[in-house]
Amino acid sequence: MTSSERLSVAIVGGSGYAGGEFLRLALAHPNLNVTQVTSERNAGSPVHFVHPNLRGLCNLKFRKMADLEAADVIVLALPHGSAAGKIAQFEGLGKTIIDLSADFRIKDPALYAKYYGEAHPAPEKLSEWVYGNPELHREQLAGATRIACAGCFATSVILALYPLLKLGVVMGKDIIATGLVGSSAAGASSTDASHHPEREGSLRVYKPVGHRHTAEAIQELPGRFPLHLTAISTPRVRGILTTAHVWVPDGYSERDVWSAFREVYGDEPFIRIVKVNKGIHRYPDPKLLDGTNYCDIGFEMDNETGRVVIMSAIDNLVKGTAGHAVQSLNIARGWDERAGLGFAGLHPA
Amino acid sequence: MTSSERLSVAIVGGSGYAGGEFLRLALAHPNLNVTQVTSERNAGSPVHFVHPNLRGLCNLKFRKMADLEAADVIVLALPHGSAAGKIAQFEGLGKTIIDLSADFRIKDPALYAKYYGEAHPAPEKLSEWVYGNPELHREQLAGATRIACAGCFATSVILALYPLLKLGVVMGKDIIATGLVGSSAAGASSTDASHHPEREGSLRVYKPVGHRHTAEAIQELPGRFPLHLTAISTPRVRGILTTAHVWVPDGYSERDVWSAFREVYGDEPFIRIVKVNKGIHRYPDPKLLDGTNYCDIGFEMDNETGRVVIMSAIDNLVKGTAGHAVQSLNIARGWDERAGLGFAGLHPA
Amino acid sequence: MTSSERLSVAIVGGSGYAGGEFLRLALAHPNLNVTQVTSERNAGSPVHFVHPNLRGLCNLKFRKMADLEAADVIVLALPHGSAAGKIAQFEGLGKTIIDLSADFRIKDPALYAKYYGEAHPAPEKLSEWVYGNPELHREQLAGATRIACAGCFATSVILALYPLLKLGVVMGKDIIATGLVGSSAAGASSTDASHHPEREGSLRVYKPVGHRHTAEAIQELPGRFPLHLTAISTPRVRGILTTAHVWVPDGYSERDVWSAFREVYGDEPFIRIVKVNKGIHRYPDPKLLDGTNYCDIGFEMDNETGRVVIMSAIDNLVKGTAGHAVQSLNIARGWDERAGLGFAGLHPA
Amino acid sequence: MTSSERLSVAIVGGSGYAGGEFLRLALAHPNLNVTQVTSERNAGSPVHFVHPNLRGLCNLKFRKMADLEAADVIVLALPHGSAAGKIAQFEGLGKTIIDLSADFRIKDPALYAKYYGEAHPAPEKLSEWVYGNPELHREQLAGATRIACAGCFATSVILALYPLLKLGVVMGKDIIATGLVGSSAAGASSTDASHHPEREGSLRVYKPVGHRHTAEAIQELPGRFPLHLTAISTPRVRGILTTAHVWVPDGYSERDVWSAFREVYGDEPFIRIVKVNKGIHRYPDPKLLDGTNYCDIGFEMDNETGRVVIMSAIDNLVKGTAGHAVQSLNIARGWDERAGLGFAGLHPA
Repeated sequence: MTSSERLSVAIVGGSGYAGGEFLRLALAHPNLNVTQVTSERNAGSPVHFVHPNLRGLCNLKFRKMADLEAADVIVLALPHGSAAGKIAQFEGLGKTIIDLSADFRIKDPALYAKYYGEAHPAPEKLSEWVYGNPELHREQLAGATRIACAGCFATSVILALYPLLKLGVVMGKDIIATGLVGSSAAGASSTDASHHPEREGSLRVYKPVGHRHTAEAIQELPGRFPLHLTAISTPRVRGILTTAHVWVPDGYSERDVWSAFREVYGDEPFIRIVKVNKGIHRYPDPKLLDGTNYCDIGFEMDNETGRVVIMSAIDNLVKGTAGHAVQSLNIARGWDERAGLGFAGLHPA
Repeated sequence: MTSSERLSVAIVGGSGYAGGEFLRLALAHPNLNVTQVTSERNAGSPVHFVHPNLRGLCNLKFRKMADLEAADVIVLALPHGSAAGKIAQFEGLGKTIIDLSADFRIKDPALYAKYYGEAHPAPEKLSEWVYGNPELHREQLAGATRIACAGCFATSVILALYPLLKLGVVMGKDIIATGLVGSSAAGASSTDASHHPEREGSLRVYKPVGHRHTAEAIQELPGRFPLHLTAISTPRVRGILTTAHVWVPDGYSERDVWSAFREVYGDEPFIRIVKVNKGIHRYPDPKLLDGTNYCDIGFEMDNETGRVVIMSAIDNLVKGTAGHAVQSLNIARGWDERAGLGFAGLHPA
Repeated sequence: MTSSERLSVAIVGGSGYAGGEFLRLALAHPNLNVTQVTSERNAGSPVHFVHPNLRGLCNLKFRKMADLEAADVIVLALPHGSAAGKIAQFEGLGKTIIDLSADFRIKDPALYAKYYGEAHPAPEKLSEWVYGNPELHREQLAGATRIACAGCFATSVILALYPLLKLGVVMGKDIIATGLVGSSAAGASSTDASHHPEREGSLRVYKPVGHRHTAEAIQELPGRFPLHLTAISTPRVRGILTTAHVWVPDGYSERDVWSAFREVYGDEPFIRIVKVNKGIHRYPDPKLLDGTNYCDIGFEMDNETGRVVIMSAIDNLVKGTAGHAVQSLNIARGWDERAGLGFAGLHPA
Repeated sequence: MTSSERLSVAIVGGSGYAGGEFLRLALAHPNLNVTQVTSERNAGSPVHFVHPNLRGLCNLKFRKMADLEAADVIVLALPHGSAAGKIAQFEGLGKTIIDLSADFRIKDPALYAKYYGEAHPAPEKLSEWVYGNPELHREQLAGATRIACAGCFATSVILALYPLLKLGVVMGKDIIATGLVGSSAAGASSTDASHHPEREGSLRVYKPVGHRHTAEAIQELPGRFPLHLTAISTPRVRGILTTAHVWVPDGYSERDVWSAFREVYGDEPFIRIVKVNKGIHRYPDPKLLDGTNYCDIGFEMDNETGRVVIMSAIDNLVKGTAGHAVQSLNIARGWDERAGLGFAGLHPA
């Protein structure tokens, strides 16, 4: 299913990591043609000054947002809270808008307010946006022109828990999910906490309770249950490894869990079930996913207690941000869902 | 409280990481004089051939176990399962025996058999050994001559959970504890899994269910409750960061948790409560503990649900192995409990 | 310049890192169809058991070399010294043979013997092979059916030094080149030295003098001069950063060096000159090149002494091995030289 | 040789890495009593807020420099260029002044001006200061009250090259020395370049020519020869590995090099010659030296050309800064030269 359609793309906020990653993917996408990238701080500089991997591959220079012109697709890669208040100005510039921030993910303004600490600036717009998780919303994404891409930690939690919750085989205990997150998730601006001598090699719990992505998981996951997220910084730059603990009923076997994942994710192009009983690659590992759009999912069962430990791994900037943005756009336009997302990842890496 | 006593020490299995770390600490200890170190593989080589940090600080050569002579203190740093079957031969060589393996930690042979997969080879000896966790067993350690040092992951779990469980304020939910563990915990022998290109930067769940140290935690922690341990390899060489989730009753406040930790650990020389509400060092981080005998403990409370996330960090080879072995010996002999354990750790590291 | 030609490929020794990397690249190459991968140790296992990045992308199983069948292209990814002695058996199986080892790189048997410590087993074959460095041998590679891919450290040294030496502006002093090399360069077999706790974070000079790749540099670089290579292991998995020091004549300016590199490498698709006077990406850095076929080259001049420090960075497994193998094959077959080599690399990574 | 003398210490600029490291060492030093630590930015905060390793070990709070009171020893840990202009105010506060910056290292104002880009602000003071390299200036340090501690990269270069140059067996070729440097050497302030996602895993040449420490090496090393330093950032936090290339005369053997190092450094307490012909720890590696005051030195000889590759490794913050400051002070006061510097370093680390 190849298409000869070719859409122009403007990336707003393109000096950050999310925008830069969308740019990288779009440059190699057969149906996309990036024509504009904005950065207030770097306006006038070539994009490869900030994203040195693109040297020789992209001759664009950053421009200021004020100089933005029309494009078929507007990709908003702004800090959380920046896009919602001025969404009208982008609506006039492009038919399709993809927002990589959290601004339009939460449909319930009360849930948004609880986790983001303030009223949503444009609640009347929320219903226009499709939550950009292709595995859960493929049908709604078809033809969509407003895509609010799912959060990275939320994606790893949702994709791990969705099958068993959808099938209704999770018992009513609290669910604990722990995310091990790379440093790129905190963005491209240096801080005391991101200073290399302080951050390298550290294992730092940065959000033991109250992580904002809880709101997305509550919204997207079937059923009602207490869900608790804890996020820990790791020495990696990219990647999230999430472990989540659920309990299944007596008699529910490891084979049943296998079947559940197969039933729900059988044909998904970017979900792989990883559970091998020998060798060194037995479970998902984000180390293997840098640059790829895969979400690898594995599990292990404690037969004595019925606990199932579900593990998921993603690259936070690809399957957690720009990659599923591209995947969502591919679905929205009816292109090959894999277009632009073919990188296999490296071994060793 | 200084002592002029000076005991001779023989380290059996001194080419591994546990034995090497005991050697490092013992060389700088005012009351210890290491006279023998065994290694079957490296017999005849200087100890600094294997432990290059000791070059210029130790002129001993490895000898074979068959050449072991008497010493005041025999430190067994053998692979799990190696010491118990031949413990009689070591009993004849020294008055005090410290075992760094798991062989004598579990008092209940049935619990041992469940987690170690075979009957204990010397169950009649188990009652002679004191479990080497100074914070829980200081009184039994005084004068002890058989010390079975606590396991590293077990130590991080036990020290995190002990105060609230001892005070009886943990509600009856399942307790999930997740340990992020450095590569040194797997020992000094290279494997496919420890090959640098495969292991560097990986986040690899290696024991999602059924971790053996669960047995120690069940034995040592007050109360009866389901306890679930999950262990994940991290890119660090040393260190364990454990997060554990418990629920406290309605009305139990953050201040109450503070008080609980203070009440139980108030005077402990190697426990530090780390909970800071600004800056970059807000919670325990094993990065700061390499080489030290501290267990740093922090917590955060989710007031809405009563969940308390307790975090503990240790150096698995020091507070998790050789360090609390020295601390236990200091207590057993009535020496300054801090003797030989004064290293502050590095910042940055 | 696209071609619809599609050649079958057999990779011999496909469980190592070089073979695995060729496999990764070939799977995404429009003109290649991998039909066989051999591994004596892993015969019968799916290739993704060893190369987990290929899960879902390749359904081949490893077979034994004894079961090798004919293919259009035979890629030899065997340990150094393994291919030369049995080259005749591979000649019967495929028209085009690409050797990733050192066996056929050196044309002068005496030079080979000096650096490899033994007589070449098939010296009569040496003249059939083209040295697989596309920048220096593009013309010989056109139509070639025997390609001996250049060594990784050699490539970084040769591409750094070639322009100034070719233009004859290097003065007759000794040339010192230092390579900082990732752990993957030592191959896929675990050793004591590659054990993660020993290797992680280490900076280990592993070949201060007498590096074998000196032979390639001597053979390929114009002029006669003493060349000294020193190789140091770094904490990275992939990548080589080489710094080389040469002296240019009085009056030769920084602008002249620029011109020299432009003159020699002006149209090269995989050479980028990186020399920026602000920002954080001023010179080549292998961190930015993981998975790519680029050789980034930079330099700085000490005007006072005429010393020029030339820096080059590559991914040792791509531009240093499998990538320029593919590039060489593209040239040999007249395909788009960039085919299969489009990955931009990641930022951040 | 123990002393019961106990001097009060004030550390000026104690929130940086150099000052923090001096504080760590001084807290464990039998003859030192730290009474004041200044930090303009952190005045009023406990020192462990910035240096979390000192939690529980130091109850001091930072004060402003304006509040500095007299002390026996004033340690200046200010940015380069800050101390020289206001040295008079510190002279009034303490008898002994140790400067960790570059301000008083260079005796020749012209050399200073060449490498630091401006005239020295207090040239008349330069002769009062002893260059704080204990191995070269032990005699001058005895009784000294003005100690200008040697620079970290300079120290690794000087200690590597000193023996052969002192003995006059280095031929008159240019000397190339390459330093691989950890991120802590750039200080405690975060920058774009130190942002973890950008810095982690990078190999970045940051000073290919013109490194300021060249001035120290020129001043301290015997003989006249062209010396060229190149500095490269590595993924480590601490440590410097320097490789330097010199040529010795025909007939000068490896054994002669051994003898030269032994002759010059035979009794040095913190110099270790590391050259082992088997195993994995054959040459100096900064990985083994974190937190220690050792300078490990090794070499390898290319018999064919007479090139000797000399390698040295240090912890830049200890033997490169605060450690040899303590060592110099120990000498100055006639204390045990090893006092406070007994940490062995960790293995593995």
